[in-house]
Amino acid sequence: MDIEETLLMIPGPVKVAPRVLRAMSRPMISHRSGDFGAIYEDCRNLLKDFFETNNDMVVMTGSGTVGMDAAVAGLIGREDKIVTISNGKFGERFTEIGERYGKAVPVKSEWGTPIDLDKVEAALEDGAKAVAMVHNETSVGLINPANEIGKLAHKHDAVFIVDGISSIGGNEFHTDAWDVDIAITGSQKALAVPPGLAVVSVSPLAEERFQDKSASYYADLKAHLKSARKSPAQTPYTPAVPLFYALQEALHMAKEEGFEARKTRTAKLAESVRAAAKALDIELFPQVNEYSQYSNTVTAMKMPAGITDDKLRGGMKKQGVVVSGGQEKLKGKIFRIGTMGVCSASDIIRTIQTLELVLAKEGKLSSRGAGVEAAGKVLGL
Amino acid sequence: MDIEETLLMIPGPVKVAPRVLRAMSRPMISHRSGDFGAIYEDCRNLLKDFFETNNDMVVMTGSGTVGMDAAVAGLIGREDKIVTISNGKFGERFTEIGERYGKAVPVKSEWGTPIDLDKVEAALEDGAKAVAMVHNETSVGLINPANEIGKLAHKHDAVFIVDGISSIGGNEFHTDAWDVDIAITGSQKALAVPPGLAVVSVSPLAEERFQDKSASYYADLKAHLKSARKSPAQTPYTPAVPLFYALQEALHMAKEEGFEARKTRTAKLAESVRAAAKALDIELFPQVNEYSQYSNTVTAMKMPAGITDDKLRGGMKKQGVVVSGGQEKLKGKIFRIGTMGVCSASDIIRTIQTLELVLAKEGKLSSRGAGVEAAGKVLGL
Repeated sequence: MDIEETLLMIPGPVKVAPRVLRAMSRPMISHRSGDFGAIYEDCRNLLKDFFETNNDMVVMTGSGTVGMDAAVAGLIGREDKIVTISNGKFGERFTEIGERYGKAVPVKSEWGTPIDLDKVEAALEDGAKAVAMVHNETSVGLINPANEIGKLAHKHDAVFIVDGISSIGGNEFHTDAWDVDIAITGSQKALAVPPGLAVVSVSPLAEERFQDKSASYYADLKAHLKSARKSPAQTPYTPAVPLFYALQEALHMAKEEGFEARKTRTAKLAESVRAAAKALDIELFPQVNEYSQYSNTVTAMKMPAGITDDKLRGGMKKQGVVVSGGQEKLKGKIFRIGTMGVCSASDIIRTIQTLELVLAKEGKLSSRGAGVEAAGKVLGL
Repeated sequence: MDIEETLLMIPGPVKVAPRVLRAMSRPMISHRSGDFGAIYEDCRNLLKDFFETNNDMVVMTGSGTVGMDAAVAGLIGREDKIVTISNGKFGERFTEIGERYGKAVPVKSEWGTPIDLDKVEAALEDGAKAVAMVHNETSVGLINPANEIGKLAHKHDAVFIVDGISSIGGNEFHTDAWDVDIAITGSQKALAVPPGLAVVSVSPLAEERFQDKSASYYADLKAHLKSARKSPAQTPYTPAVPLFYALQEALHMAKEEGFEARKTRTAKLAESVRAAAKALDIELFPQVNEYSQYSNTVTAMKMPAGITDDKLRGGMKKQGVVVSGGQEKLKGKIFRIGTMGVCSASDIIRTIQTLELVLAKEGKLSSRGAGVEAAGKVLGL
């Protein structure tokens, strides 16, 4: 497979714009220099708008997981409880992290089904220092009710941690309006930067509640905040300089489009995928209710009956279009299409066309061209 | 300052070759794909030669510190002791990490002075699960005796952890011959890759002694080993894909030169810097003895009397040559020149010429051209 000719339609790492890729080929600079500080400061400022927050902001070198880790390790000691809400793989990761440092109180729903707010409230009644949830559960394509859970968290005086990794900048996400104390994203999602950076916003309440020392040495938000507030702005340990170049370029690119406009466009792209799925008799995977919506950044669909993952995704890959499968227990049962960042209408059309070709080859295409037509209609093509 | 015209002579991040920078601008791929797995596997194999080891090898997304963190967090629980040897900033970091997870037993020497092997042995007599040391103390330009300390560690049945971040691939470093259980490097040093990756080798003994669960969620070597051994090879969390492209390219570039040849060249470059310093009456900072040598990857020199850091480094920077200052208590007292990776003889000459210009301007140049001549002689120019 020639990666230069491949269309990457997975929910992260996402396609990166050439100008962002090119930004990474600038020479190295000292990470303690004013040059680096200016880049970091520019990113921190733009990210505040991207997150819709006045909270302070750090960028950590690592996957999005290092941001989730840092949030929990900063707050939760051996004897502290953290309510961890899950209805997919990444929610369960919060439970694992919570168990690593303290006492996790899991509130589980079946993967892809809505969170039960009553269960969350019941868990909180026993007292907890924090509540952690995933806003956009990438593994199942479902948006969870951050606003409602935030209210419950604060009613019970718990710090509210939200994994917004595959959400912020793609779905509606209002860090301050929803009172999110620690919001996290990863560079390889709606920011459309290569993977390797976690971005974390930290509210004054979260900072006040931090343990004296984080349970993790590397994933230490206090250390990151302290360094970020120096002049020039720094990171406590050597940062991935080229990814900061890319982040700055991508943020300016997103700002040129408009952060709101990008979300609107992302919503339209996801709507077009859902329309195509419907036209092709492919069922959407997640269950939604009044508090839970289909994701705009990743659409999870059930594998059509009588077709294997290998035939469907393998067949699409042979045509140069890469989509994701299901993770863990959903392996072979679903497939997922990402629509974040700089994904375009023509990327969608190529993807749906390819899906149709593969379905036709397997004798599973109900109506030729119906998917493309439905998607095109939503996209105004 | 135009970064495209600047010569970066600090001990990391180091100058990166254009072909390595360009490798980063390849499009993104899925980190669970065979394409990524093949890159990771190729890197893991080449890194074994680079480390001179048969031990298994992982690459973590993060600074070198995440590798140090992972080593300690993997082994040291609340009640475990770790002997942490320090004679500079990075040795002290091991003490901080050890204290974060368990009981650190620091064995300290003054910054830049040799380690006292008797003190190390005495500390080990009380029993410790591990010994951690820095091979090349970047903050002071001194090589510490890994071979000797490794023998002491194993005599006392302790796991031997070595921070080889600014050493491996630059100085002599023999992971297996020295019985190093966990050896760590960072991408931005002798590998001449941008920062953002930690490379860690893990011996069977270290693996056997790992705690059931690492004290850190993100910095978890067991999780990294498990994923690396999958087919295709993976990382537990999304890796910084472009840095893996760069790592692969840089490893092939180093292999073309020859790993031994690169070390020999690095030694020659450092020797030329020391010769220039001597010719310019600039004193080397570290104290050496039979067990400790001047580093070949970074030369630390005392600030000449009557000249400030601002005048010296600031003056050089104005001429487009960036060298490092002292860290923490050594701020203003020393300056440091890195000679790792793809640093060339002409880079040295430009650096020494610029140093002479600045010294002359400050009226501190004893003999015009003496530094360049001395360096040139060593370099065979």
